[in-house]
Amino acid sequence: MHLSTRGRNVPPSPIRKLVPFADEAKKRGVVVHHLNIGQPDVPTPEVFFERVGSFREKVLAYGHSAGSLPLRQGMAAYYRRLGYPVGDEHVTVTTGGSEAILFSMMAICDPGDEIVCFEPFYTNYNSFAVQAGVTLRPVRCSPDDGYHLPPRAAIEAAIGPRTRALLICTPNNPTGTVLRRDEMQTLVDLAIAKDLFLVSDEAYREFVYGEVPHTSVLAFPELGGRAILLDSLSKRYSVCGARIGCVVSSDPELQRSFLHLGQARLCSPSLEQHGALGLLPIEGDYFQSTQAEYHRRRDAVMRGLAAIPGASARTPEGAFYVMARLPVDDAGRFCEWLLREFQLDGETVMLAPGDGFYATPGLGRDEVRIAYVLEVAHLERAMRCLREGLAAYAKR
Amino acid sequence: MHLSTRGRNVPPSPIRKLVPFADEAKKRGVVVHHLNIGQPDVPTPEVFFERVGSFREKVLAYGHSAGSLPLRQGMAAYYRRLGYPVGDEHVTVTTGGSEAILFSMMAICDPGDEIVCFEPFYTNYNSFAVQAGVTLRPVRCSPDDGYHLPPRAAIEAAIGPRTRALLICTPNNPTGTVLRRDEMQTLVDLAIAKDLFLVSDEAYREFVYGEVPHTSVLAFPELGGRAILLDSLSKRYSVCGARIGCVVSSDPELQRSFLHLGQARLCSPSLEQHGALGLLPIEGDYFQSTQAEYHRRRDAVMRGLAAIPGASARTPEGAFYVMARLPVDDAGRFCEWLLREFQLDGETVMLAPGDGFYATPGLGRDEVRIAYVLEVAHLERAMRCLREGLAAYAKR
Repeated sequence: MHLSTRGRNVPPSPIRKLVPFADEAKKRGVVVHHLNIGQPDVPTPEVFFERVGSFREKVLAYGHSAGSLPLRQGMAAYYRRLGYPVGDEHVTVTTGGSEAILFSMMAICDPGDEIVCFEPFYTNYNSFAVQAGVTLRPVRCSPDDGYHLPPRAAIEAAIGPRTRALLICTPNNPTGTVLRRDEMQTLVDLAIAKDLFLVSDEAYREFVYGEVPHTSVLAFPELGGRAILLDSLSKRYSVCGARIGCVVSSDPELQRSFLHLGQARLCSPSLEQHGALGLLPIEGDYFQSTQAEYHRRRDAVMRGLAAIPGASARTPEGAFYVMARLPVDDAGRFCEWLLREFQLDGETVMLAPGDGFYATPGLGRDEVRIAYVLEVAHLERAMRCLREGLAAYAKR
Repeated sequence: MHLSTRGRNVPPSPIRKLVPFADEAKKRGVVVHHLNIGQPDVPTPEVFFERVGSFREKVLAYGHSAGSLPLRQGMAAYYRRLGYPVGDEHVTVTTGGSEAILFSMMAICDPGDEIVCFEPFYTNYNSFAVQAGVTLRPVRCSPDDGYHLPPRAAIEAAIGPRTRALLICTPNNPTGTVLRRDEMQTLVDLAIAKDLFLVSDEAYREFVYGEVPHTSVLAFPELGGRAILLDSLSKRYSVCGARIGCVVSSDPELQRSFLHLGQARLCSPSLEQHGALGLLPIEGDYFQSTQAEYHRRRDAVMRGLAAIPGASARTPEGAFYVMARLPVDDAGRFCEWLLREFQLDGETVMLAPGDGFYATPGLGRDEVRIAYVLEVAHLERAMRCLREGLAAYAKR
């Protein structure tokens, strides 16, 4: 009687594995600045709680396996406002963007099939790939290029006979990179030439700060059913705990597969779907003020990094993450040390070690992912902790 | 560019696949009595909505990947009240009992491994097995034995070198059978002798009407880490839409694997976990009155079946389902006909075709699953629709 190889191979989250040390630090009375996880502190819009409170059914019943129709309609309307021709029949509501990842891998890959992705990448792609028996083929993006795509030939070299899809994330977690339209076009051309799906995780669509506008996979009609959009309400409306996301595809066969996958787990949470309905009409002003706030935060983190001898990072164009190189040989050990042994005026900082965002062994060992999800004053104190922590760590 | 074999093989839910015909019937003004799905009409306890309404955090944030600590503690306390030595470290909160099924299959099976189950079985075991690349080896239980277990030798014959677990459901969906203690002991002995997990889905634990008490997998300390309990709050407290369940195991390695699977999808819905906390102290009176109500309903359905020429069913001991044999050669076609072509005084009935609950082709074609989840007056009208429908169907 023992676990499966798969059961052992699902990796711990690099974002969460240091949590026990953070908990111990808090028990000792140390304030921990959480820059390890993409949990925004932006208040959840009141309308969400109001709608939840207005739920008047006597029974909290199962909903439709593809999501409630009004929610699918609301999601489709959101995409149409952005200029993409999405109908509610193209949307399957998922239990968080997480399930959108799992459903798409399950529907397009058999065990042993491959997906080309770009490292560093959102670490949980790897967890879901292990679950689905899918092999991720990472193509390396370099900090020297701002983690933008390498030349087409480098991507092509990773595509083999069992490759079923290209998987991207734009704006990117963990790098903050926003793919330019010409980069997207390269991927679109490759997907068509090589008979692949182009799976695009756009959970951070509304978080773009630079001059590079966001380009969605939905902006390329020539992709047809090859385009699979993974999305989430978690970051866009600061409702991470609601577990509401979606997968968008115009392919009826794929939608049927998503429906059957959805029927297996019956439905996404009903009450939180009901609440989410109130979020979808939110537009313009809300996103602009949120963007402006994250823009300030990004700049605060970049200023903090610039003041650290030996640290380096390029300025991210979107999302709310930055990958930074630190003058340490093992960032994981340093992050643990920050929680277990360091404090500055009763405070310390929690970061996500970089190697967890790479599939290739050895990469990312001197990197950390910083999530700038706190207000500027806290970020400034967190970055001071990082600077002084590095100095103390070097002197041990 | 095409779906995976897996993507095509995840079956549609036999419980839900006739929904489009039901929707059309409703559009024509026909009242559809839903006996197809285990969606109780029992009101969700007010305390759930009160707690949800009292949520006062400004941000609906991610929770712990294993579930909120108070919820795990509350679940453990519930099991201890039943007499089982469960600590909160033995409980992982899952997004519905559905996810408990998926997590357990993922953690104990590699693709190609096998699980022995007992048919007819909860149809979604099959959907999750397809997702996890697991082969279900069905052992047939006969209506003539009240769907109780066949002799030990028949079970042993299904166990092969790749078998990793025995999977049971007690009280059973779809048969309502409650396994006796001696049957459970046979399974326990087999699991130990053959080095297998014993995975027990006990979502209907609190719904037992006969003289056979429910025996949990947790009642056998000799199983140690071989015991895996799958559970759900959905039916117990009529909160199907909340998507809160759990998986219980005393094996730390298995719990670690559940944690990592949980980290991949971040967390179960936060607000509904918060609401569920209010449900766990509910005891005695609530379950007794719910049981008494379902007992009456069961008896109403059995009376209705007894009045139908050529129909037969044994009286189920628990849950809220009965598998009934009908005098038709293709129950699926008959169920569709009931929705598309039949009505009695503007009403009809929706049932789940039986073959979807079997893995062996050809079995269950003259059976339906009836969920007695409506009040007695509605059940009586639904059974009248079934009786008159069968008579009209025979005369077509």
